[in-house]
Amino acid sequence: MPLLDEDRLFPPDSEIRALARGLYEAVRDLPIVSPHGHTDPAWFALDEAFADPSALFVTPDHYVFRMLHSQGIPLNALGVPRRDGGAVESDPRAVWRLFAQNYHLFRGTPSRLWIDHAFQHVFGVTERLSADTADAIYDQIAGSLAQPEFRPRALYDRFGIEVIATTESPLDDLAHHRTIADSDWQGRVITAYRPDAVVDPDFEGFAENVERFGALAGEDATTWQGYLAAHRNRRAYFKTVGGATSTDHGHPTARTEDLPQTEAAALFVRALQGKCTPDEADRFRGHMLTEMARMSLDDGLVMQLHPGSVRNHSGAVFDAYGRDKGYDIPTRVDYVTALRPLLNAVGETDMTLIMFTLDESSYARELAPLAGVYPALKLGPAWWFHDSAEGMRRFREMTTETAGFYNTVGFNDDTRALCSIPARHDVARRVDCAYLAGLVATGRLAEDEAPEVAHDLAYRLAKEAYKL
Amino acid sequence: MPLLDEDRLFPPDSEIRALARGLYEAVRDLPIVSPHGHTDPAWFALDEAFADPSALFVTPDHYVFRMLHSQGIPLNALGVPRRDGGAVESDPRAVWRLFAQNYHLFRGTPSRLWIDHAFQHVFGVTERLSADTADAIYDQIAGSLAQPEFRPRALYDRFGIEVIATTESPLDDLAHHRTIADSDWQGRVITAYRPDAVVDPDFEGFAENVERFGALAGEDATTWQGYLAAHRNRRAYFKTVGGATSTDHGHPTARTEDLPQTEAAALFVRALQGKCTPDEADRFRGHMLTEMARMSLDDGLVMQLHPGSVRNHSGAVFDAYGRDKGYDIPTRVDYVTALRPLLNAVGETDMTLIMFTLDESSYARELAPLAGVYPALKLGPAWWFHDSAEGMRRFREMTTETAGFYNTVGFNDDTRALCSIPARHDVARRVDCAYLAGLVATGRLAEDEAPEVAHDLAYRLAKEAYKL
Amino acid sequence: MPLLDEDRLFPPDSEIRALARGLYEAVRDLPIVSPHGHTDPAWFALDEAFADPSALFVTPDHYVFRMLHSQGIPLNALGVPRRDGGAVESDPRAVWRLFAQNYHLFRGTPSRLWIDHAFQHVFGVTERLSADTADAIYDQIAGSLAQPEFRPRALYDRFGIEVIATTESPLDDLAHHRTIADSDWQGRVITAYRPDAVVDPDFEGFAENVERFGALAGEDATTWQGYLAAHRNRRAYFKTVGGATSTDHGHPTARTEDLPQTEAAALFVRALQGKCTPDEADRFRGHMLTEMARMSLDDGLVMQLHPGSVRNHSGAVFDAYGRDKGYDIPTRVDYVTALRPLLNAVGETDMTLIMFTLDESSYARELAPLAGVYPALKLGPAWWFHDSAEGMRRFREMTTETAGFYNTVGFNDDTRALCSIPARHDVARRVDCAYLAGLVATGRLAEDEAPEVAHDLAYRLAKEAYKL
Repeated sequence: MPLLDEDRLFPPDSEIRALARGLYEAVRDLPIVSPHGHTDPAWFALDEAFADPSALFVTPDHYVFRMLHSQGIPLNALGVPRRDGGAVESDPRAVWRLFAQNYHLFRGTPSRLWIDHAFQHVFGVTERLSADTADAIYDQIAGSLAQPEFRPRALYDRFGIEVIATTESPLDDLAHHRTIADSDWQGRVITAYRPDAVVDPDFEGFAENVERFGALAGEDATTWQGYLAAHRNRRAYFKTVGGATSTDHGHPTARTEDLPQTEAAALFVRALQGKCTPDEADRFRGHMLTEMARMSLDDGLVMQLHPGSVRNHSGAVFDAYGRDKGYDIPTRVDYVTALRPLLNAVGETDMTLIMFTLDESSYARELAPLAGVYPALKLGPAWWFHDSAEGMRRFREMTTETAGFYNTVGFNDDTRALCSIPARHDVARRVDCAYLAGLVATGRLAEDEAPEVAHDLAYRLAKEAYKL
Repeated sequence: MPLLDEDRLFPPDSEIRALARGLYEAVRDLPIVSPHGHTDPAWFALDEAFADPSALFVTPDHYVFRMLHSQGIPLNALGVPRRDGGAVESDPRAVWRLFAQNYHLFRGTPSRLWIDHAFQHVFGVTERLSADTADAIYDQIAGSLAQPEFRPRALYDRFGIEVIATTESPLDDLAHHRTIADSDWQGRVITAYRPDAVVDPDFEGFAENVERFGALAGEDATTWQGYLAAHRNRRAYFKTVGGATSTDHGHPTARTEDLPQTEAAALFVRALQGKCTPDEADRFRGHMLTEMARMSLDDGLVMQLHPGSVRNHSGAVFDAYGRDKGYDIPTRVDYVTALRPLLNAVGETDMTLIMFTLDESSYARELAPLAGVYPALKLGPAWWFHDSAEGMRRFREMTTETAGFYNTVGFNDDTRALCSIPARHDVARRVDCAYLAGLVATGRLAEDEAPEVAHDLAYRLAKEAYKL
Repeated sequence: MPLLDEDRLFPPDSEIRALARGLYEAVRDLPIVSPHGHTDPAWFALDEAFADPSALFVTPDHYVFRMLHSQGIPLNALGVPRRDGGAVESDPRAVWRLFAQNYHLFRGTPSRLWIDHAFQHVFGVTERLSADTADAIYDQIAGSLAQPEFRPRALYDRFGIEVIATTESPLDDLAHHRTIADSDWQGRVITAYRPDAVVDPDFEGFAENVERFGALAGEDATTWQGYLAAHRNRRAYFKTVGGATSTDHGHPTARTEDLPQTEAAALFVRALQGKCTPDEADRFRGHMLTEMARMSLDDGLVMQLHPGSVRNHSGAVFDAYGRDKGYDIPTRVDYVTALRPLLNAVGETDMTLIMFTLDESSYARELAPLAGVYPALKLGPAWWFHDSAEGMRRFREMTTETAGFYNTVGFNDDTRALCSIPARHDVARRVDCAYLAGLVATGRLAEDEAPEVAHDLAYRLAKEAYKL
């Protein structure tokens, strides 16, 4: 018996369901354009087999281990590595059994849909994961992983990916991307410029990072002008060598500033000296967004802003396990005030700023009105915790009436989990087709217009917005 | 082929759709009560033909030109006049073609529904606007506009409008309203008292405005008592001469204050001297809301508060094109704190304060609980960006359970676009009937009660709340 | 004719409706676990008849009198007692008639559903309340109330209540609970520890309360260590004598603090001296939440936090009528910042903190992400103004995808109105089954999993989370 309902995520009413299915069938098999995510370029450069089922599905997936942990399962029992190298569960089958025993926790979550999708479509699993089926499914997946057609490049091809973007620091030499480019494999794996390490005064080792950054760029990055030149240089390198078409910025807030150059330069000096107050560090980050936006105007890289997450909420977990352990919690963001300096600097130009949010209350109130008027601003898709059926539905319901479809940019999977890529794009295509079918059924979109919009949302808008 | 689906905005399920259609048919042709909007009284006073299709549908409609601009079309290419009188596109047909070529941008938006409604019902257009049909539709509308039955008074009559309110400054002499009253035309066009120019210390020319205000009122408005007396006088004038039943207030925040008179008087002096700090100006505006509320208690004018928009977000666009160019962006408002002084002053009386919001997150959390207990407070309908099918649905879903239907006041079209008036009321009637049908179908409202509520929402509540 | 639709609150689509009905039928008659509410233990201790229909349905129910008052009916006309003992309507039939004449105000509200449910199921009323039926229904209910099977203990048994919690102050001697325990009645009425009177420096008579508190506990509660010991003592008393399994905390904000003990002790001294600034009082309250959490870790009492209500919004109504008169208005809460100190202190332990909110915008943005990772944190159900069909639906739609079902704790009725208990649990069971049916119909939950989840939400999760 299949794990997945063929008509999942379509509206239950039979007439609208038929409409949605019709729209979906025409976009289901379109190539996947994945313009933003966090897959590891080493996978595609080295093309090595994944170690075991737990290493594929549990240990690296914060959606999965955070839910298990929320019910009291210690992270070390799930094999999540400790910072101090202390002992954690090292038997992948033991981790898998714990996962399987608690699979009911994922009822109603997108993780369940993604995992079942990968089980069924990638590995041919036909039984639901549970304590009873844990070992058989483990063995089935482990057996597959040993075969060449389950290596990263083969999966990329099988998933119908046309292009996938990773994100790298300006300090990265893009060796994996060069390896891929030099290989005879035809996959298109591009990078994105993510400069946190050299624009955030609070980043660990900021001053040393800036020095290395200058060395890589052949500029004296310890002067304000040299620092800006180094950015221009590394952005060009990311474009040329890594195929980058975009930059990515993940500050705690959406604050932007457009300071006088002398003030920015002075802040930069204080940042290098480690003397910034928290507010000064925040102003510097805010100002650097506007500098990045101005560079985008020159070099054409599309700018992405992902603000609004309070990182590492639990000090104890951070101390024991480090970053990205599920303790990044969304918070409110005031986009109207925060984006004003940057939008006043470049909002009327033809550069592109793609905004993401974790604060859904801003969709209809702030972001759709802003994207519905500023030529430079586009809305990224429902993100992270909102990368889900309900999250996507709310995104469309709360943005379309004011921003329309054409100030949005299609789907981003934003994932670190390779096997979830087709599952996530499939969810997005289904939810968008369901939404469009609803509009048709209620006379808000003509039936002959819907297929074009469905195609735009599934494929064209992502390619165009990200210049792919 | 009609542009509009006869059953648009009704629930797709056939049984509920039949319920909704039945409710709608009984209210569809009720007279239009339009208690709040921004149509130009000169239209009805002078009854001149509209110039051309672009002047009717594109150039004055910020919903339309903001969406076109968001995709990179310069405002001057749409004929939007520059402040400096610089050249803009002056050929209305060229503007129209640009509009038509980009008509797909409006898919899924209320503008699309309103425009198609006007095309079909007012002008008999039968083809969808596009690059191909642009000229033919232009010619058809232009031809209609030359005929007497498309002049403003004729359209008012044809639309079944029973009464329509405009808004004027206290500095306005209401000449157009007097012209209408003196004519033999039976239309009821009333004004509303909108005192921004004389209550906002930051308003351009505030001190001079207050002087002229005093002159019009026959009071020395440069003293605090004379200033209050001038308000009383002009409010009475607006009632008697302009038929006003309401006042309208559009401050950036919902802040109210109830200051000691000596402090208010001192702030007023500083305001006249141009010495208010931003916070003092805000306090003065906040205090004047409470003064206006107290005057409403005396003279019976219904008070409307429309807060929460950050005006002129783009400095460059404001400099080039001025106000109301689509750059007014909603922001968060804390109603619980902001309204407390005013509600503590008059909330327990039988004056009426109608609150609007652009911050939907306040519907269920703040505004419905406040309106569900204070006798003076009523909720205005979904407003501006939320004047849409989804916006209205969310309004009902998030306010009804706590405030009921009878602390709401029916529909406001709030429009500057004459031909959109029947379209907007039609959307509101359909969405409300759809909502009521859903309640009936889920056992939350008895079938015999729904028609009365539908009638209340479409007609009676607006008349009663606005004393029309 | 029945007042209630048998299929109320189920989705209208016939297939999903059948699914929902099937799930509901299996949970409809499960015992009621009521782990949080405000019924009066005197009812069950003394088992006296309720005075009259108005005393049962109108005068004590803030949902009811606030709605009537919002339309201009004075509270005294509804028999709500004044603080000064001044005259209010004393004829219950007159109050009832006013209620009946205005029963249309409750259309679309949960109150209407609850009252109709009680009318039909408890009193066998078959006609809708209105001016015409007021007297007959009054007489019917009054007649019932005189009979022994309508006394509190009989109703408890008839409603199928398995356990019900009240809330008491640490200053309460739990006499009623002792009476119940000593009786031969088998009902389980337990208390919950609600320490506002002795943890809030702004509470009326705080210093005297602390003194009495110490006396009751046999500790010198005027020293910081003695004060903490007194809490431990009274918590133990509430567990042993009152059967308590939980504590309850209703601060204005969700602010928590984890101060050094010396600083907490110093604040405590200032609080006893009445010298706390507002911010110091707030910090003290915030710190006491963390102290309570640490005690929960020791004694196993489940901790409940109900923040975010601005109490007594109208000064005039508070002066005339006192607390709890419908003027408590929800406000925004920043949970991410506010809960961090407490969660950093105990969030990784196996104590349980159940969070409630009146700010729905925090469900998907803050609370589900927090509950979906911290082992200690669980989400309480949709609360107060959101204890409604739409409120519950939004709760599930905005929490399930990130927190799943198993970080929620079933339903709380939170009521002061005995007859509404079965009605409220029935609404919750119907809405949850409707939600689950929707998941099944859209392929997000397997049909064979749904009944287990329905049972969990209706019964098991409340028992487990509250250790009942």
